Amino acid sequence: MENESCFAVIGGDMRSAYLAGSLAADGFTVYSAGLENAGYCGDSVIMTDVFTAIRMSAIIIFPLPVVRVATFLNAPFSMKSVSLDERMLEALQGKRIFAGMSEGLKRISRGWEILPVIDYYKVEEFQILNALATAEGALALALIGAPYVLNGSKCLVSGYGRIGKMIASKLKALGAEVYVAARKSTDLAWIETMGYAPIRFEELKSVIRNIDIVFNTVPKLVINEGLIAQMKRSSMLIDLASYPGGIDLRAAEKYGIRTEFAPGLPGKYSPFSSALIIKDTVRSILREAQK
Amino acid sequence: MENESCFAVIGGDMRSAYLAGSLAADGFTVYSAGLENAGYCGDSVIMTDVFTAIRMSAIIIFPLPVVRVATFLNAPFSMKSVSLDERMLEALQGKRIFAGMSEGLKRISRGWEILPVIDYYKVEEFQILNALATAEGALALALIGAPYVLNGSKCLVSGYGRIGKMIASKLKALGAEVYVAARKSTDLAWIETMGYAPIRFEELKSVIRNIDIVFNTVPKLVINEGLIAQMKRSSMLIDLASYPGGIDLRAAEKYGIRTEFAPGLPGKYSPFSSALIIKDTVRSILREAQK
Amino acid sequence: MENESCFAVIGGDMRSAYLAGSLAADGFTVYSAGLENAGYCGDSVIMTDVFTAIRMSAIIIFPLPVVRVATFLNAPFSMKSVSLDERMLEALQGKRIFAGMSEGLKRISRGWEILPVIDYYKVEEFQILNALATAEGALALALIGAPYVLNGSKCLVSGYGRIGKMIASKLKALGAEVYVAARKSTDLAWIETMGYAPIRFEELKSVIRNIDIVFNTVPKLVINEGLIAQMKRSSMLIDLASYPGGIDLRAAEKYGIRTEFAPGLPGKYSPFSSALIIKDTVRSILREAQK
Amino acid sequence: MENESCFAVIGGDMRSAYLAGSLAADGFTVYSAGLENAGYCGDSVIMTDVFTAIRMSAIIIFPLPVVRVATFLNAPFSMKSVSLDERMLEALQGKRIFAGMSEGLKRISRGWEILPVIDYYKVEEFQILNALATAEGALALALIGAPYVLNGSKCLVSGYGRIGKMIASKLKALGAEVYVAARKSTDLAWIETMGYAPIRFEELKSVIRNIDIVFNTVPKLVINEGLIAQMKRSSMLIDLASYPGGIDLRAAEKYGIRTEFAPGLPGKYSPFSSALIIKDTVRSILREAQK
Repeated sequence: MENESCFAVIGGDMRSAYLAGSLAADGFTVYSAGLENAGYCGDSVIMTDVFTAIRMSAIIIFPLPVVRVATFLNAPFSMKSVSLDERMLEALQGKRIFAGMSEGLKRISRGWEILPVIDYYKVEEFQILNALATAEGALALALIGAPYVLNGSKCLVSGYGRIGKMIASKLKALGAEVYVAARKSTDLAWIETMGYAPIRFEELKSVIRNIDIVFNTVPKLVINEGLIAQMKRSSMLIDLASYPGGIDLRAAEKYGIRTEFAPGLPGKYSPFSSALIIKDTVRSILREAQK
Repeated sequence: MENESCFAVIGGDMRSAYLAGSLAADGFTVYSAGLENAGYCGDSVIMTDVFTAIRMSAIIIFPLPVVRVATFLNAPFSMKSVSLDERMLEALQGKRIFAGMSEGLKRISRGWEILPVIDYYKVEEFQILNALATAEGALALALIGAPYVLNGSKCLVSGYGRIGKMIASKLKALGAEVYVAARKSTDLAWIETMGYAPIRFEELKSVIRNIDIVFNTVPKLVINEGLIAQMKRSSMLIDLASYPGGIDLRAAEKYGIRTEFAPGLPGKYSPFSSALIIKDTVRSILREAQK
Repeated sequence: MENESCFAVIGGDMRSAYLAGSLAADGFTVYSAGLENAGYCGDSVIMTDVFTAIRMSAIIIFPLPVVRVATFLNAPFSMKSVSLDERMLEALQGKRIFAGMSEGLKRISRGWEILPVIDYYKVEEFQILNALATAEGALALALIGAPYVLNGSKCLVSGYGRIGKMIASKLKALGAEVYVAARKSTDLAWIETMGYAPIRFEELKSVIRNIDIVFNTVPKLVINEGLIAQMKRSSMLIDLASYPGGIDLRAAEKYGIRTEFAPGLPGKYSPFSSALIIKDTVRSILREAQK
Repeated sequence: MENESCFAVIGGDMRSAYLAGSLAADGFTVYSAGLENAGYCGDSVIMTDVFTAIRMSAIIIFPLPVVRVATFLNAPFSMKSVSLDERMLEALQGKRIFAGMSEGLKRISRGWEILPVIDYYKVEEFQILNALATAEGALALALIGAPYVLNGSKCLVSGYGRIGKMIASKLKALGAEVYVAARKSTDLAWIETMGYAPIRFEELKSVIRNIDIVFNTVPKLVINEGLIAQMKRSSMLIDLASYPGGIDLRAAEKYGIRTEFAPGLPGKYSPFSSALIIKDTVRSILREAQK
């Protein structure tokens, strides 16, 4: 009963560290493990080893992504690697388990496949708020990486999903001239309505030579060598799409165009806000379950 | 006659490198010196030594600031230090000389004091466009340095001059809740009109505990220990004022609050745009002189 | 063959007048009818009677909405009423027919029900661009109707569909404090991300007393007497939802609160842009059909 | 002593009516006169005749502008005209008198010239907040008067003073493409920095043919027949400058271009906010005087 309100936060980057601290500040008992080098996580977080943390807690929160390589936990702040093996699997029986990108676990073994894991990364509210942090991070990359001011520059956003929408809106707010490439004609109508220049992907070749910065969000090769060959030397390419991305990095290198392949911006530049999003998502799922 | 359109760009950071390249692209003959390690500056820029560059050119552009320490030219991309000595003074006789923050030269000797140097940094148009680059750089520092998203955060801009105005406007555009501290009541009326919360400096103590990020632009101690002591641990202080700044850095360290002392942002993050501003200012002065 | 490029624009408000003029300016032969009092529609539009216009043309464009009352064409600028009777039905056989809100026609008789009519109002791109004109019109109503400035006022947008999204964005751009009421939790996440205050409908009663202006877009009674009773006397209610609207108008009157029931804003305040939207939609459908 | 906190609000438009109501709501004793047809002004305002109101009060607030024609008070909501004659002058001796555009009074007679009148219209804070109301009103005129959407339209703001600045910012926020004409090169630098297209007045002739809506704020003939002759028939001219304005209205009529000569927008569309600005200005002056 008592440990119904006990959380274990296991592994992860600064988001996990802030998550542990924030849950503790809300009054929960929080055990952290695999975060030894993250520094101070907040008052009253109990630092311990992975198995103690799991044993003492009813709710286990794994990081995003949960698996880094092969069968190892994603734990950059841990002094030793944590194996997602049979012993771990056993320890987790009967617990409520949360993890980000849990498909990584399913691939390990049959045991993991049948373990009930709730993937907070798949929750749409999480994705929306995460997109905001990604858009802000992308903005920072452009502000720092391009040797000119954003105000008045010509920016192309490729893709008009969650992240594309937010980047376009922020770029315009900072005074850039915004082009958005999309496929659906309803998206193109929205794009026009928002005051951006709507571009079909097949028309990209006619505008690309004027573009200063490209923000790609499409996880498919859309910014190919043919386009890159026509770009200005001073231009910049930022790829925000998940693996394998949508920019031909080799071609960019060949033509001497600066590129940033930038997955994981929320964890890097907004770990505190990201921790709150994870916390809110997990707590809202727990609340729903109690009804 | 011919060398009327010859420019020498001497020393400086990436702004000088881009400046040389841009003047050359405009069709002028450009000699660069003291920029050996800046890399490629643009087609047809002639790299040479300082004295050759000066001898061959009618117009000499020194960097911003022109003096780094004592009597040495500011030349971070040069392999050897360049002394602003009598020999240099002699070489410059009869040339049109531009420099940024030329008061540094005047302090060297009587000869420099009477040399006619035009300070492009003092031109108001330059300052306005430079303030834009500073505001964008400050935004980047906040986006990267604060572990939360700017959207929805509470930001205080201290001072409502050129830089303060631009930062406030950009922060609001990115969804922050913006407070602006100013002294003049007409400034406070403008601040209200722009949708920011107007604050008198003496009222800062009543709001400071809610502030997430402070952007100071006032070159006088306004963010003192008394205020810093009340700030949140997770807050961030960014000082954009010129020396000696307006934030008590020691107090910030004492209370564990993250601080960025950030002069020179335009040269750091927007050297290309900054080079264009210098070029436009210099060319507009030359044009005026011809009338 | 020749009359493949002949258009008849029949009835309607200023949108139809501008539509006729714009098609003529594009080089098409255009017959207009039922627009006698609309004034000058553009060079080379041929004004004639309804049956001549239909006979001479391959493509017939009826207005939005096509039916005003019972079986009469919506033709406010016509000197006489035009009946949508059997004779009209016969004249239309074999023509390509476009109309807005064509469900009105279907209700007239079996003949109209089976006549192939393309409803441009149902095309999503049309709806998106129409929503923009609606949002601008709503803004104008608030700017003129409320005796205070929008800047700093507290505005509630009820509903987060196309129109709600655009109004919220424009209100925020003008400095209002924006609250958005929605049902779906993903909408609420977007709302937060855009910098508006997200409100569930059931929470409206706790914020309504602070609201200055309500923009309703939900076609269902959401702003009921219970809510209206708590509103400030100086507040204003604008209902943009289609019939029957979502604001209890009687209650508003009882409590002396200013109300605007405002359908049809695009035709009223942006007839020229609306005409272009209709034209683009019709022409894009014709182009698709030719492939 | 007691009547130190008694105010008389005499004549004026809805601003005066709201001003009376707002002062009463603050707890002051308020007599109103010359506002008989304004309707309900707020609880506990005492409606009386002009001379009673003045006699009972220590502080007299006249409207903006105070004089309408010749020697008559500006009192559109009064049933009879109020003469600013010797009897009135006598009644005002020893009172604290506030009025807007008091130069109208000075012209009446020597007695008025030496009467100490504080002109709240000359206070810069008042002007700034009044400019906001003017800018919002101008926006409403454009939204309603031009038959197209503002989003994407090309708008020219002539003059970059208080009102010009605010209109430009609001137009851009609503998605217009903004051109600003100014004379000073520092203004032009600011304009560029804000993301508008900077135009010198002498360059107007090269852009005017593309402009959809002109907002003039310069009280001098800048939009002359030569320019108007080149404008599109569908364009619109809005003159916000005080008398004699800056648009050649006759030429506009000649070329069939829609024009709005629109002084006094704050009183027309934002009387409540304008009343608060007058109240705040008057009270702040009274507070200063007490120190």
